[in-house]
Amino acid sequence: MTQDAPSQSRKPSLRDPFDAGHAVALGTDWPLQLDCGTALGPFTMAYRTYGRLDAEHSNAILVCHALTGDQHPVDPPHSNRPGWWQLMIGPGKPLDTDRYFVICANVLGGCAGTTGPKEINPATGRPWGLDFPVITIADMVRAQTLLLDHLEIDRLFCVIGGSMGAMQALQFAVSYPERTFACVPIAGAARHSAQNIAFHEVGRQAIMADPEWCGGNYLEEGTVPRRGLAVARMAAHITYLSEPALHRKFGRRLQDRQAVTYGFDADFQVESYLRHQGSTFVDRFDANSYLYITRAMDYFDLVSEYDGVLARAFAQTPVRYCVVSFTSDWLFPTSQSREIVHALNAAAADVSFVEIETDKGHDAFLLDEPEFFAVLRGFLQGCSDHWRLTQSATGS
Amino acid sequence: MTQDAPSQSRKPSLRDPFDAGHAVALGTDWPLQLDCGTALGPFTMAYRTYGRLDAEHSNAILVCHALTGDQHPVDPPHSNRPGWWQLMIGPGKPLDTDRYFVICANVLGGCAGTTGPKEINPATGRPWGLDFPVITIADMVRAQTLLLDHLEIDRLFCVIGGSMGAMQALQFAVSYPERTFACVPIAGAARHSAQNIAFHEVGRQAIMADPEWCGGNYLEEGTVPRRGLAVARMAAHITYLSEPALHRKFGRRLQDRQAVTYGFDADFQVESYLRHQGSTFVDRFDANSYLYITRAMDYFDLVSEYDGVLARAFAQTPVRYCVVSFTSDWLFPTSQSREIVHALNAAAADVSFVEIETDKGHDAFLLDEPEFFAVLRGFLQGCSDHWRLTQSATGS
Repeated sequence: MTQDAPSQSRKPSLRDPFDAGHAVALGTDWPLQLDCGTALGPFTMAYRTYGRLDAEHSNAILVCHALTGDQHPVDPPHSNRPGWWQLMIGPGKPLDTDRYFVICANVLGGCAGTTGPKEINPATGRPWGLDFPVITIADMVRAQTLLLDHLEIDRLFCVIGGSMGAMQALQFAVSYPERTFACVPIAGAARHSAQNIAFHEVGRQAIMADPEWCGGNYLEEGTVPRRGLAVARMAAHITYLSEPALHRKFGRRLQDRQAVTYGFDADFQVESYLRHQGSTFVDRFDANSYLYITRAMDYFDLVSEYDGVLARAFAQTPVRYCVVSFTSDWLFPTSQSREIVHALNAAAADVSFVEIETDKGHDAFLLDEPEFFAVLRGFLQGCSDHWRLTQSATGS
Repeated sequence: MTQDAPSQSRKPSLRDPFDAGHAVALGTDWPLQLDCGTALGPFTMAYRTYGRLDAEHSNAILVCHALTGDQHPVDPPHSNRPGWWQLMIGPGKPLDTDRYFVICANVLGGCAGTTGPKEINPATGRPWGLDFPVITIADMVRAQTLLLDHLEIDRLFCVIGGSMGAMQALQFAVSYPERTFACVPIAGAARHSAQNIAFHEVGRQAIMADPEWCGGNYLEEGTVPRRGLAVARMAAHITYLSEPALHRKFGRRLQDRQAVTYGFDADFQVESYLRHQGSTFVDRFDANSYLYITRAMDYFDLVSEYDGVLARAFAQTPVRYCVVSFTSDWLFPTSQSREIVHALNAAAADVSFVEIETDKGHDAFLLDEPEFFAVLRGFLQGCSDHWRLTQSATGS
């Protein structure tokens, strides 16, 4: 593993923090050793920072994005829509950019600039497609440590993320406890459940059933598996919302009509909404990336990695954890966060656990949830106080 | 509506009750008026009976099947698998064929013999395809009353069904209270929820995205939208099981391998299982029927039919209801059965309500659930006692 290998050029990216982002070549001296056995490098990591890194390089928060997220949680370029964590990150917000230096990188295998199946394979000069190696959550995290090396950040103040971001945050804290002061896994799990693997498999089969997918070579064939990817997104999108939220938002209301049409048009608002979710997703996401990233989530299993005893993953961890779940999240239900908390308790780790009452389902981690925000503010303030004590105690 | 019109030939089908089933032409004198405004007739109804109709024609139970069911709940022909309610129907079983005459018909729009989109449109001599009129649950029930006329059954002892079968049972009892002594809606709802419409829409989009669907004309084109229909089935199948059941049955166990393959094969048992569910479904079900029947469920809304007050549907009903739900059913959760029960109570109707404790999800209504079976036995016995009292009181 090359996570401790220095990358070729150490340039802290402290230019205008609200620009459109950076891209850095990593793994140039030593390639990244992936779990599948392949060595990858050099590879590009696209990332974004918000706020200013302090002189001690001690105020960095790594934000890990979810399946279809990107490195632009705030002010995405070429978009008039807010970023996916626009509510969370910024001056005076829970991840306060007046205090913290927030880093967010597109994951390995992604399609927003970091090397993934849609990028060019230098060995062939053609898009990777299915020749791209299958990556894991641990691989994503290894790549992130190379980025931190590049930014000269030895230790994160905090690593945080929701959904797949929670998997990365957990993996980061478990693999690199010495580089992690605090960890906030939100709406996550220590292993991907059978039901969630099943939903991912449906999405993958929908993509691969589309003839325009061309066995993964659609970029070379000049096609796009639009319909398959849209179906995958539609199925997934249902799982991000709760039944009560769907009922509240749409119920059985009709779309621009007074009566049903006795046909297969989108009579109901919820159908129209889903179709819109599917068709707009295709414009911003790569179908092969969807295959790779869902597979990385399926493979995530911290429990089996530690011989079936999750507490061993946290043995003697110095990391302060705050585990967050949402009552109406049925994709990553509270029971799965509780499994993490029980293991942390069994390891006598420093952990707080909050289940937020909401009817908004899994997507609650992206939405305006005042109690959730208050919890994060409180936890980060508490960590900040401790961190200062630690720093002064060690004289650093 | 023609439900009271006598059909051309009244031939009670009391031949060997365990044969492969019957088909009868209905709507020959008067076509069936559908909710969409179209008149359909004559049409074929494929059905099956078990047990013997008594001399008074007073022991008939109409069993209504679910979305992908058929008229063969017991001993399906040309199959070495048991019927979908093999556990429920037979001598000594809850629907005891030593006592009751059990009728089950393939629904209108189905693909097991009853007229539906895969049958020949007599007007054109070609398969109906998308020219088949969009049908509703009420249409299915109207067609069933014509079958009962044909069998010379004025009044059912009981109408019973799970899932879409529960919708039909409810609709039957509400539309024809004078023809219904008892009604057992199992794992059902008075209206299809936004979440369930959403899942159906995903399935329909998966089918229609398959180029082999050919705009609905695949039978004429000699193709089959196998991959689209398989994806639809896979997505739906997840909703029939509970998360705990998936965890218990499959967990994260691998399929015929010791380690993950870092690829997109079915590494996990749950993936292999889902793929099998998808591919075998295609051999037994018609893709257009899937569109039509899911649409009928989406359109089902007894609440709006009664101006938003469900209790009005049950005003002065003489029908005895037994409403059944299952704790781990998240597709038709207990709250949706409770809505029916509350409305029945508000109409001062005769209703019992049982929520069965099980981890098997929506599919529990098809499985060996001893408490569920005991409830049905008890309810039917009680109804039987009352029915005899009623019959002797009225001197009939």
